[in-house]
Amino acid sequence: MKQVSKIQSVVKIRKEAKKTGRIGFVPTMGAFHEGHLSLMRKAAAECDFVVVSLFVNPLQFGQKEDLTSYPRTLSKDRKKAASVGVDLLWTPTEAALYPDGFQTTIELGEISRCWEGASRPGHFQGVATIVAKLLQIVRPDRLYLGQKDYQQVCVIRRMITDLHFETNVRALPIMREKDGLAMSSRNRRLSADERAVAPILHQALRQAEKQVRHGERNAVTILQAVTETLKSIQRMTVEYVALCDPSSLEALDRLEKEGVLLVAVQLGPVRLIDNVLLKEKG
Amino acid sequence: MKQVSKIQSVVKIRKEAKKTGRIGFVPTMGAFHEGHLSLMRKAAAECDFVVVSLFVNPLQFGQKEDLTSYPRTLSKDRKKAASVGVDLLWTPTEAALYPDGFQTTIELGEISRCWEGASRPGHFQGVATIVAKLLQIVRPDRLYLGQKDYQQVCVIRRMITDLHFETNVRALPIMREKDGLAMSSRNRRLSADERAVAPILHQALRQAEKQVRHGERNAVTILQAVTETLKSIQRMTVEYVALCDPSSLEALDRLEKEGVLLVAVQLGPVRLIDNVLLKEKG
Repeated sequence: MKQVSKIQSVVKIRKEAKKTGRIGFVPTMGAFHEGHLSLMRKAAAECDFVVVSLFVNPLQFGQKEDLTSYPRTLSKDRKKAASVGVDLLWTPTEAALYPDGFQTTIELGEISRCWEGASRPGHFQGVATIVAKLLQIVRPDRLYLGQKDYQQVCVIRRMITDLHFETNVRALPIMREKDGLAMSSRNRRLSADERAVAPILHQALRQAEKQVRHGERNAVTILQAVTETLKSIQRMTVEYVALCDPSSLEALDRLEKEGVLLVAVQLGPVRLIDNVLLKEKG
Repeated sequence: MKQVSKIQSVVKIRKEAKKTGRIGFVPTMGAFHEGHLSLMRKAAAECDFVVVSLFVNPLQFGQKEDLTSYPRTLSKDRKKAASVGVDLLWTPTEAALYPDGFQTTIELGEISRCWEGASRPGHFQGVATIVAKLLQIVRPDRLYLGQKDYQQVCVIRRMITDLHFETNVRALPIMREKDGLAMSSRNRRLSADERAVAPILHQALRQAEKQVRHGERNAVTILQAVTETLKSIQRMTVEYVALCDPSSLEALDRLEKEGVLLVAVQLGPVRLIDNVLLKEKG
């Protein structure tokens, strides 16, 4: 596995790789866990050349968010990436991606303003902007994203469609700990007590799945049950629980065919998010 | 010359053309005059395949602006383009470029908000967004723009740099009528009287050039002289006169090395803009 930081090096290597096959790309902020590695493995299985970017993007963090405390574990990350078949680990600098004079951002409408967007103003503008930049530099045939950040996948898909980028999005399932907690680089900042109650998110979502299997279709009923379950944990603050259209993310009154159930809570110092796709059948 | 409207047709033709050579691209809103044709001729001379898009982009017009009255002269345009060596005339539909659900826009900072941006809020957001879309579809090696829309060139250059698009910008000189009026599709909407006084813009800019040749460096002095000249025409409303840095467009107090002098006026039903590069030497 090669590691480079300069944009020009990536462009050169990408042009060479393009001649002989398909490029897969996994954009990350590092602190790799099984979720990241599952994306890299899939990319390695489906593509001839796998690029992973590792960049903690300041543009997608709010002023009061955890940019400085976001975990940075480069040497471990390097070993993990190499072990799952990554060809190029790209660690760009902030100065190269946001040089003096930089002033172009990508904005999306309602899909970026609802749910996570409402809790984290400007977040998806930062995500869309960095992903657009990375995609122009790497020009991958396939982009691998985790469904854990469900709304992020929707925003990026929408941007790729709207701007005619020539990349196919592959969204892969959430990887979970044994007790059901969705894997996240932020989980390590939970105290032992917080970590013990964190799986309630997953449990609440599974309850909702069960309700739907038993015939419940009313959004209010489903959302109330989830909210009550989450509120049973005293130190947990519910930010939102939403049942919405799986691509536009518009809120649904009733579940018809399919919907996605999104939850976000604050638990101690950490925001946790999780989601599940609900289908009328299955 | 081929003419197509579908995005997919352009992508297919572009991929084929790319195999054998360099692609030149001239984005237009039609109503071709010598200014447009000079861009197409240059593209034909420098590139192996020339694509011209013709699309009156609603996103860059304000609510009170002249979208509906903007001249549309397709069959004449087609003949003109064919006569100067254009290979592909692309006439996309609004429905294809802005389908239901479209919601991604590109925003720039101060470079898009000053001067024209202040007079036409949202204009450069519309320009940046459509140009980004067209560039992703055509993927040209070279993009040909007219210096008449000086700020537009700066905004597009900045976007291309910030988003890492792989296109070189070629900005070509303003084409003028015999009496000095900068060619514009909007000139045809001037009455005979208005048309007669319109060359004052060019005259005022030439005066400024002369002042600088004679040693004047103070921005206020230069701008005052230009403004007074323009105000001598009763029916003309001056929108702005600015001396600024040629790439950032920040206002200059003094001319050092070089600056660009920008003017915008309203004359009858038409906004007219013009500009000149001022160099300390030359």
